[in-house]
Amino acid sequence: MLDIDQIRADTPAAERLVYFHNAGAALMPVPVVDAQKRHLDLEAEIGGYAAADREAGRLDAVYGSVARLLNAAPDEIALTENATVAWQMAFYGLRFQPGDRILTAEAEYGANYVAYLQVARRTGAIIDVVPSDATGELDVDQLERMIDDRVKLIAITWVPTNGGLTNPAAAVGRVARAHGIPYLLDACQAVGQMPVDVEAIGCDLLAATGRKFLRGPRGTGFLYVRNSMIERIEPPMIDHFAAVWVARDRYELRTDARRFETWENNYAARMGLGVAVDYALALGLDRIEARSRLLSGRLRAGLAAVRGVTIRDLGRNPSAIVSFTVEGHDASAVVKAAEAAGITIGASNPSSTRLDAEARHLPPLVRASPHYYNTEAEVDRLIALCERLTA
Amino acid sequence: MLDIDQIRADTPAAERLVYFHNAGAALMPVPVVDAQKRHLDLEAEIGGYAAADREAGRLDAVYGSVARLLNAAPDEIALTENATVAWQMAFYGLRFQPGDRILTAEAEYGANYVAYLQVARRTGAIIDVVPSDATGELDVDQLERMIDDRVKLIAITWVPTNGGLTNPAAAVGRVARAHGIPYLLDACQAVGQMPVDVEAIGCDLLAATGRKFLRGPRGTGFLYVRNSMIERIEPPMIDHFAAVWVARDRYELRTDARRFETWENNYAARMGLGVAVDYALALGLDRIEARSRLLSGRLRAGLAAVRGVTIRDLGRNPSAIVSFTVEGHDASAVVKAAEAAGITIGASNPSSTRLDAEARHLPPLVRASPHYYNTEAEVDRLIALCERLTA
Repeated sequence: MLDIDQIRADTPAAERLVYFHNAGAALMPVPVVDAQKRHLDLEAEIGGYAAADREAGRLDAVYGSVARLLNAAPDEIALTENATVAWQMAFYGLRFQPGDRILTAEAEYGANYVAYLQVARRTGAIIDVVPSDATGELDVDQLERMIDDRVKLIAITWVPTNGGLTNPAAAVGRVARAHGIPYLLDACQAVGQMPVDVEAIGCDLLAATGRKFLRGPRGTGFLYVRNSMIERIEPPMIDHFAAVWVARDRYELRTDARRFETWENNYAARMGLGVAVDYALALGLDRIEARSRLLSGRLRAGLAAVRGVTIRDLGRNPSAIVSFTVEGHDASAVVKAAEAAGITIGASNPSSTRLDAEARHLPPLVRASPHYYNTEAEVDRLIALCERLTA
Repeated sequence: MLDIDQIRADTPAAERLVYFHNAGAALMPVPVVDAQKRHLDLEAEIGGYAAADREAGRLDAVYGSVARLLNAAPDEIALTENATVAWQMAFYGLRFQPGDRILTAEAEYGANYVAYLQVARRTGAIIDVVPSDATGELDVDQLERMIDDRVKLIAITWVPTNGGLTNPAAAVGRVARAHGIPYLLDACQAVGQMPVDVEAIGCDLLAATGRKFLRGPRGTGFLYVRNSMIERIEPPMIDHFAAVWVARDRYELRTDARRFETWENNYAARMGLGVAVDYALALGLDRIEARSRLLSGRLRAGLAAVRGVTIRDLGRNPSAIVSFTVEGHDASAVVKAAEAAGITIGASNPSSTRLDAEARHLPPLVRASPHYYNTEAEVDRLIALCERLTA
């Protein structure tokens, strides 16, 4: 059982604020903030290099923590500035020939899709979008039928930025494995919200962020690279950390996933990330998932019952991201009204998931994403607000 | 005149520690630390997105501060995770054909050189090293003679990581301009140590870090891209911040230097960077240069007079980085002995500047880098320590 009183004591802002913006950036628990501030103080006290040396054990343990979170090995983890960089180091490290196919999903995130477009233009690769099934999830049967020997990558977002969807990541993994196709999973909204097991999923590459459901610092992210893939992907860009300059005309790439890192980092942020991961692991990702889905389910059902509110979510197994529109109020007006009522939610623009938004003719959506530290009473406050708005 | 008492009051560690590791990571002044901690607190209080929104004015002003530091325009600045990423986004954005030439210098930094090697292998471009003159500086006459129409880039380090050198950046700029060749300057050790004026230098691209002589946070850096170059360099990797996804099969790249950024950032670190730049600007870079060179000159001269100490510095106009060896003590032993005496210095490995190190048969060097917040008495303590070591 989660000790909600203790958890909320670790989250002082929860006293003043109904915070449902965890799909944007969650509230950091006190230990995450303190770890960062402590490291900044140490840097000011003895210098940035000595501070990293002194905390080398703890900093190295961050790889172990992230590995445990994903059921991976520490040498399969790269720590990066954010999820985008993690994803880019993997994606841009792959080589494509003209006619090679990249398979993705309808609800793919804009950050990734523009990268597909750039690489398609550069290399002649082709982007093919796997259709969704009637529930809105990626259709795994269709994916299977689309496979041929020109498919060089399957890359999807597990939990899209809006639309409440949880794509069938493990079923996609079975197809990828059966055909020996590299599988890159964007797990930004999944990590910290639910258990993530790269073995169960069967992905080769996974990118995620610290700041969302993991409750870590902004400016943190990580990349998982399956051991068997590391030597097959050349980092798109290197420095002397990724590659040691061993002779005048020769460098040697690192053999672990840190070949996708650069030498310099924000160590305070890394310390915070490690604490955030440990905090989630200590609570238990299964318990976290159960509670965040309980609360988001309550919110989704409550909002659905409000006349004038339309739930815009998809899939059999909705995530903790609740997307909706309110008749007569555009998304930004709803966000503003909520803010005035002490409730923090967000809006999500069609350009963040353009294919899905166009297919469903979506306007900007209101996005409310509860987490385990929220309460039923908070959920009911947002429902009540929407009732007042549409009354 | 610099108010050294006030400056040292802003640098509490200077009371306890002789800190000569500014070429590694300088001691942050209190306002830089406080700005970061304040922003972390704000994030914990209202959430990471709301905090960035509330501080949008100050965060935007960081571009203005960096632009002032470099005599550039704010839309010519990209803020990045570190100097390496800044440099990479520029370098890997350039396109090379087989036989294209990249001109660099003998004291080039390892991080950059491995990137040249990777791109040379990938594209068939050729790396040509401009010889140094008798003083050890890049020989501008030789550079001029090496120019032909296959030279597609001149890329050098202004103040190398060791060797005390200040390369003639502006003279190189005149050659680059005369021939219309893009000029990428690594200014990591220059910013914060001395005035930097991209117009006077004539560089098209400049990368630098926050953590060294600028006294900013770890995990901060920036890229200057001359306005006329922005549209000519396609970012090697993009996300939805660099490129807006405007239609299913089309994105539009930003038209300012922020096309080299990613959407997500560590805003606390950015706040700290802005304060660090403003702090340096308020003191005056000319005054900072004068004092740091006064102190490093005193150190260099004092060490040179110690029997058994060999100064390993080059050039007509030495930087505030003093490199030396101590007979009978390897570099790491000297660093350790200094640490025991309350003096923080560093060591520099041959692989960080391999061409120069091989040409000069350099062992690992001791590197001491005073800054304006140091004192003459501190300098004399390091000299005395080396006297004791060699006695």
